[in-house]
Formats: sequence, C-alpha cells, structure tokens
Amino acid sequence: MSEQTRRISATALQAFIARAFEAVGVSTAEAKVIAELMTRADVNGADGHGVFRLPQYIRRIKGGAVNIKPTIRVEREAAGMALVDGDNGMGHLVMRFATEKAIEKAKTAGTAWVGVKASNHAGPASLYASMPIEHDMIGLYLAVGNANHLAAWGGLDMLLSTNPIAVGVPAGTEPPIVLDMATTVAAYGKVKTSAQRGETMPEGWMIDRQGKPLTDPKRAGEGLLLPIGGYKGYGLALVFGLLAGTLNGAAMGRDVVDFNNDDTTATNTGHVIVAINVTMFRDIAKFKTSVDQLVRDIRSSKRLPGVDAIRLPGEQSHAKRLERTRLGIPLPPALATGLDQLAHELKIPAPG
Amino acid sequence: MSEQTRRISATALQAFIARAFEAVGVSTAEAKVIAELMTRADVNGADGHGVFRLPQYIRRIKGGAVNIKPTIRVEREAAGMALVDGDNGMGHLVMRFATEKAIEKAKTAGTAWVGVKASNHAGPASLYASMPIEHDMIGLYLAVGNANHLAAWGGLDMLLSTNPIAVGVPAGTEPPIVLDMATTVAAYGKVKTSAQRGETMPEGWMIDRQGKPLTDPKRAGEGLLLPIGGYKGYGLALVFGLLAGTLNGAAMGRDVVDFNNDDTTATNTGHVIVAINVTMFRDIAKFKTSVDQLVRDIRSSKRLPGVDAIRLPGEQSHAKRLERTRLGIPLPPALATGLDQLAHELKIPAPG
Repeated sequence: MSEQTRRISATALQAFIARAFEAVGVSTAEAKVIAELMTRADVNGADGHGVFRLPQYIRRIKGGAVNIKPTIRVEREAAGMALVDGDNGMGHLVMRFATEKAIEKAKTAGTAWVGVKASNHAGPASLYASMPIEHDMIGLYLAVGNANHLAAWGGLDMLLSTNPIAVGVPAGTEPPIVLDMATTVAAYGKVKTSAQRGETMPEGWMIDRQGKPLTDPKRAGEGLLLPIGGYKGYGLALVFGLLAGTLNGAAMGRDVVDFNNDDTTATNTGHVIVAINVTMFRDIAKFKTSVDQLVRDIRSSKRLPGVDAIRLPGEQSHAKRLERTRLGIPLPPALATGLDQLAHELKIPAPG
Repeated sequence: MSEQTRRISATALQAFIARAFEAVGVSTAEAKVIAELMTRADVNGADGHGVFRLPQYIRRIKGGAVNIKPTIRVEREAAGMALVDGDNGMGHLVMRFATEKAIEKAKTAGTAWVGVKASNHAGPASLYASMPIEHDMIGLYLAVGNANHLAAWGGLDMLLSTNPIAVGVPAGTEPPIVLDMATTVAAYGKVKTSAQRGETMPEGWMIDRQGKPLTDPKRAGEGLLLPIGGYKGYGLALVFGLLAGTLNGAAMGRDVVDFNNDDTTATNTGHVIVAINVTMFRDIAKFKTSVDQLVRDIRSSKRLPGVDAIRLPGEQSHAKRLERTRLGIPLPPALATGLDQLAHELKIPAPG
C-alpha cells in the first residue's frame, strides 16, 4: 500500500455509496441496502468487488442497463425451492431478497434452493454464502459471471465466465469457513490489477489464441483465462453456469453480456443460493465442535518447507475484517481520485 | 488394450458380480442391485470404480467391515431434506436408496437435499448424479473419499480425501451432461495404474514431503496428491467434505478410514445427493433446448491449434456406453485373473 493511500471508515464509505445511488434515483431505503453490502465487501477485503465497482454501477444505471425501481418477486415456489425474478434490479438487492427467502424456507424445509434470474452483478459471492451462517445454516452460492473470459477446454470461443462458487460454514469458537473462488486460476480482476501495476503475469493464468502462455497483462484482451485443473475447471464453470444460469432462465454461454463494455443492455444475471439448516441434520453443538476440531487439525498440521502458516478459507478475510473495522478501509490513490470525480459528477459530497 | 484382453457382456458380468455377493451372504435381491450398479459403472467406462473393486469389496465383507444385512433408513426428514443412515451397508444400496428418496421428494418440494452417513464406497459419483436425469431432474452428488491422499495447502498431514463432485444435467437430443471429477489433479487410481504399467507420472500430480515434484508412482506412498488450482482445490475438497461428511455426522478429516489397507473397520462414509426438479424452475422443453444449444455452441467452437475435438463432460463416457453395450466390457488380463481367482475362492462359476 503506498503512502498516499488514505483510509476511510466503514460508516463514511457506506454513507458515500448510499448518496451516490440516491443521486441516480435509487430509493433511500434501497440505496442503504446496496451501500451496506458493498461496504461489507470492502471491510472483508474483497477489494475488487466493493466500492471499486461503484463508478461502473452508476454508469450502467445512467445508461439504462439496470432498473432502479425493480419489483423483485418470487415467480415460482415449492417447499424446497423458489425462483426469484430480480426485475433487472441491482444484484445486491436481488440477492439479499433471495438469500433471506432461502433462509426463511430452510427453517422449515431443512434445505432450500433459490434460483435467481434477471439480476445483476452482486459483489463478492462470499457476501451471500455467509448470510445463512448466523442462522446456524450453511450457505452455498453459485453464479454466472458478467463477462465471458474463458473457452471450453481446447476451444477458442469465449463461451464461459469465471463462474464462482462460495460456501459458508458456521464454526464454534473458530471463525466460520468461507470459501469464495472463481473456477479460473486467476480472476480477471487480478489481470487488470497486474496491468495497472505494469507487472508480468505468471504462466498458467492466461493463454493466447495459439495456446501459448500469455504473461503480458496489457495483451489480456487477446487471450483466454485458464480454468483450474484444465478440463476439470472447464467442467465446473460449465455446470455451475447451467445451475445458476440455464436452470433459472438466466443468461449463459453466448447470451452473457460483457458488463465491462456495455452500459445499456440488461445482463439477465443468474445466481443460486442454497441455505442448509444444520440443526435438521444433527445437533448443532456437535457439528460446530467437529468443524472447530477439523480447523485446528488443519492449522496445526506439519508444514511443507518454507510454509509459515496453513490457512483456512475465509481466514485472511476474517483478519482483514478485524483490521478494517478498527482502522478503516484503505482507498488507493487511483480509486480515491475516481470516487472524488464521481462525487463531482453526481454533485454529492466526496467520501470521508 | 492388449490382445489378451477379453470382453464380457454386461449381462454375464452382472450375473458374476451378483453370485459373488450372494456367496458372502448378501441377499439375492440386494446382490442384484449392487451388481447392476457396478456393471453400469463398467459399461460407462469408469474402469477404476466397477468390477475392479469387487475383490476389495468381498474382502471387506469377509473381514466384517461392511454390514451385509443393513437396515437403511431415513433418520431425519423435512420437506426439502432427509438424512439417511446407511447402517454400514454397501454404498451402492445406500446411495440408491438415498437418490430415490431425493427424486421422490423433489417431485413435490422442487429440490431435495439428502445427506447420507454410515455408508461405504459406492462406485463412481456419476452413477448417482445421473439417476435424476430420467425424471427431468438435475443431480448433484458430493462425497468424502475413503482414504486421505492430500493435505491442506502448504501442509503435510493427510487430512483430506479427493472428495469428488458429480453433476448430471438432462439435455434434449444431445447426450446429458455428466461431470464427475475428483478435486485433485489426478485420482489416486490413476497413480496406481501408472505404477502397474511402470510409467512416470507428469509433474503436477504429486509432490513429496519436501514439496518437490514426485514422478515415480512406485514412491506414491511417500507423497501427496495435488489439488486442482492449488489452494482452490484444497478449498473445494474441504467444503465438499464438510457438506458430505461433517454435516451428516459421517467421517471427515482425521476420522477417515483408509479402506485400501483395512478390512475390518467401518468407514462411516458420507455422501450428499441433491435432486433438482427442472420443471419447477422453467418449462422443461425450453430448458432442454437451451442445454442443446450450449452443447452445440461449445462443440462447434473454434479450436486451439492441435485440438481435434472439444468435448462435453460425459461425452466420452456416453461413447463408451454405446460401444460396450454392443461389444461387451473389456477385462484386462490382470483383472480377469483376479476375478477367476475370486470365483475359485468363493466356489462360484467364473465370469463369462
């Protein structure tokens, strides 16, 4: 982090984000919800999925791509499932609605699978996979990404996105386990960050259209992201996309809109959130004791030479949450400038 | 395939497997179910998970590790879930029971999540993920493997198995999409096969306890399998194990029994099968048309230099199914000899 990086409190950041959405016509109540979730992403260290996205979100609202007055509703429903129509609203609103629905249904059904269509980018997957945790539930989230950056294994046509999976699991005295990962070796955001910094990418992140390693991030537009485990990651991206997209009547494959380069077209983003009520399966205290034991067995494992610590998924995010709650959220200079400029454009007070 | 490899019809193989289980005390009806599922694994080309496992299964029954008269039952149930207690029965029986339960529940609940404990090795994951397909449902299967061959990322203690995921998706005129994969770069069975053939393994399959590539499969006992995508595959193996094992009160982490080296201890194997009723989400014909379109878009993609065809998950298995249904199942010499010897020991007619 450079010396120029300033920090902003979560409260101040959230207030700024809410102001920005209100300035483009989002209701006060809904702007607050979006701002709270976006700020939570930053507090948790998901730097590419929080306020970093604000200028893009505002641009797409101004371009008419996103509905600022959505009627989010359950279109279909049975005991163990629901299909939510997001009415092209901000993804955060749609996914909060869907996750609350899943939690509510899982209280009696034990497990509830809620599919979502007509949504938009909703920030980091971990936000929604984590929500069931405080209800002693496991959360499982899948989504279709909002730009196709990879091809089928062996192919060149970019028909797949980095379709992520996130799973949140309650623990006892240990922090919860929260896995949040794209099905590619590197997320596209990491490629963009490398380009900004003038760095070279490691081999294995991308290939060019001849199948050769592509390590210059400035040439990323010519290349394809590589899935984890080769054809295996391709398979995961495909089936997660079928579950989060095709099943719900949301975009998948050729229908995915690249929301980085389009401010006017609805994305019809699809997601899935599953809430799994642990108490329906076994005694919750015993479950949490088992999770804690596993966490400790893993953390205290013998280590490979040169490894300083073994981490659990969600552990680094948990540490950032503690730090940023205390010290505030760092805003790197480029981001801070962008937000100041956005404030100027929207005629609202700058952040902080 | 060597010239000595003989082929056996599915009917004859199934009859032999059933005879073997009956010879060790399994009821005629249950022996038939196990034999049918094991044969289906061979017909589908899952060579490491069909009749190849028969000597081991019989050895473990004889050793008292597996209950040949199980009372498989639903221990807990709500609208969208069930927990099945397999009573330490053969995994095939337990998983058939659990999958039928999931399908039945999903008819009204829309989606049903069925967890399983006190089960055993059940053959290839794809068997169960595929069963919902003929009911116009998607199947999702997770399991805890029956031997720990990998460590947490950066660790040396083998606390994780190659916990697989399988997803079966109905299509229209195209073959169904059936993904079935371990969360490691190579399954342990592939390592064993390499050792038998005297081959060298590619770098990336295993590391030794210094973290260096291990390429001699005869030294596999000293090494660890590598997860796909490094820490990402570790995360997947961990959360799939929490969902299939810990949630159900089944073995996970330090409690996993290595069933390759133990003929007397119950494994308490855990699985999950989820049945997702497509018609509850959208018009089934439209869904199948979308899947077919995606399959064709992928298959007709432009290809990287040197790639002869782009495959969908399940496509090679589908081709084997057609071939082996017509020509029979190949039995390599070592396997054929082993089965002849088993027949001799059990005093039953040899296969074929």
